[in-house]
Amino acid sequence: MSTAISPPAGVGVIGLGSMGRGVAQSLLKAGFTVHGYDVHDAALQQLAQAGGMPAASPAEMARHAEAVVILVVNAEQTESVLFGKEGAAAALPRGAAVICSATVAPDYAAQLGARLQEMGLLMIDAPVSGGAAKAATGELTVMGSGSAQAFERCQQVLDAIAARVYRLGDTAGQGSRVKMINQLLAGVHIAAAAEAMAWGIKAGVDPQTLYDVISQSAGNSWMFENRVPHILDGDYAPRSAVNIFVKDLRIVLDAAHRAAFPLPLTAAAHQMFLMAASAGLGAEDDAAVVKIFPGVDLPHPAAGTNGTGTGA
Amino acid sequence: MSTAISPPAGVGVIGLGSMGRGVAQSLLKAGFTVHGYDVHDAALQQLAQAGGMPAASPAEMARHAEAVVILVVNAEQTESVLFGKEGAAAALPRGAAVICSATVAPDYAAQLGARLQEMGLLMIDAPVSGGAAKAATGELTVMGSGSAQAFERCQQVLDAIAARVYRLGDTAGQGSRVKMINQLLAGVHIAAAAEAMAWGIKAGVDPQTLYDVISQSAGNSWMFENRVPHILDGDYAPRSAVNIFVKDLRIVLDAAHRAAFPLPLTAAAHQMFLMAASAGLGAEDDAAVVKIFPGVDLPHPAAGTNGTGTGA
Repeated sequence: MSTAISPPAGVGVIGLGSMGRGVAQSLLKAGFTVHGYDVHDAALQQLAQAGGMPAASPAEMARHAEAVVILVVNAEQTESVLFGKEGAAAALPRGAAVICSATVAPDYAAQLGARLQEMGLLMIDAPVSGGAAKAATGELTVMGSGSAQAFERCQQVLDAIAARVYRLGDTAGQGSRVKMINQLLAGVHIAAAAEAMAWGIKAGVDPQTLYDVISQSAGNSWMFENRVPHILDGDYAPRSAVNIFVKDLRIVLDAAHRAAFPLPLTAAAHQMFLMAASAGLGAEDDAAVVKIFPGVDLPHPAAGTNGTGTGA
Repeated sequence: MSTAISPPAGVGVIGLGSMGRGVAQSLLKAGFTVHGYDVHDAALQQLAQAGGMPAASPAEMARHAEAVVILVVNAEQTESVLFGKEGAAAALPRGAAVICSATVAPDYAAQLGARLQEMGLLMIDAPVSGGAAKAATGELTVMGSGSAQAFERCQQVLDAIAARVYRLGDTAGQGSRVKMINQLLAGVHIAAAAEAMAWGIKAGVDPQTLYDVISQSAGNSWMFENRVPHILDGDYAPRSAVNIFVKDLRIVLDAAHRAAFPLPLTAAAHQMFLMAASAGLGAEDDAAVVKIFPGVDLPHPAAGTNGTGTGA
């Protein structure tokens, strides 16, 4: 069972949201037979139109799959689709590989790896970075950990969905640990970009000029460069929503709390995302955290656009 | 008086620390006659050895200068060298230009521009970014504002010291406003890099791996990429000291406070730098803010190095 899973082998995708949809497309393009499951019928219909095989349950999907990529939003959903009613884990053939790409607590990922191993399944702890755009083009970054056997089996699957695959250790949990630190920084940097733009505009600086100068200076971050254009365009259609960072920073804070470790900036940023969610902005783009600052004349969408963007 | 100041005209530099020393070198290299002033004799001797003319007071220096670049650390020192005992302002020839490059509150910069104008002097509000390394090579970034006449007069002076000169408006204060936002982000990002590395190491991630992955991912920032290597090397020789951000974030917070504007992340980051300063780390490199996190096994300097680095 340690030979590589190659097209046209069956590969399952659980969770066909903006990330899972892109991953399914990339797998189809690479020639795999893609079986998909999602709780939303519309997502299943979209998969069928793209050439994939919709399944009525995770279990039904699993029977046809040598590997499953899980792209649900958190540990609770991961648990449910693997071990809940009509779950995938018991239905997968022995030696199949579970590629867990939801952002979950590192301890949960480690435990999951041990449980799947007891069932004769392989696991790659494989959180991803890059967003919906990179998912659609098969250019995600995978922060992976797992056995050499699991990586060998899944090499062509990973190659189909990712431009860069980090191997961060031999056991599940190590990938999720690095992803957790990435999310900590991503969340703090989005909140910092919002705070900086809000105060800059309030202080009378032209927002476009501020963006042009800072993005070429020592104050720049990946997130500043990527998210501030949403503020400049007045476009808060969700590429990644405020609620994602409400959730992800909570995962980081909980993990640190269990180790009695202080994270002052993460805690402050989390409060800012909560403030945005509590103001009804949870489903807007995460750049909408800028709206928590009162009395700031934020840029409006250009005339002729509806301000909801493409959602791409 | 609106013709450009050209070599070998006299240009003054006040404040010959790591930034001013580099600026003086760049001006000498461009062929200007450089008159310098600093409160430290050693800095004056170094200037003389480099080919510059040390002065006994700002006033003495000013008599020989058509333009003066001020590279002291804050508004108090700027005020003192211009208007204190033996200050430069009254001694400068009419039509001379004052290039104010200390990080100061935007309101102070605006008032200073008006006061100098009343004395028949030009001013460029010209805070810089790039650090000692870029100062030495004449490649600073200038976030400038001031009259067209001032920029015309100083074009060759600015060209000698900067790779990039932003013109952010016609009046003093506008440059300092943009610099303030840059410092806000720079300070928050250094503190965030420290928080992320501390928690990552505590959680069991290899620090070098963490740096390699994050610096290629969405969690990256200019400061993460630049400062984390100091942590990896265990090298806290000050390229820029903790105390600089104790000072600069205070300037940001004070300006926002005067406008009754909240800056939650800036305030949290400032507390972290204060905690580092209060632990006796104020003169160490700003990356030493990572040391405020207890129980973290930070990397040690490699054997055979003394851990104090080059200070470059």
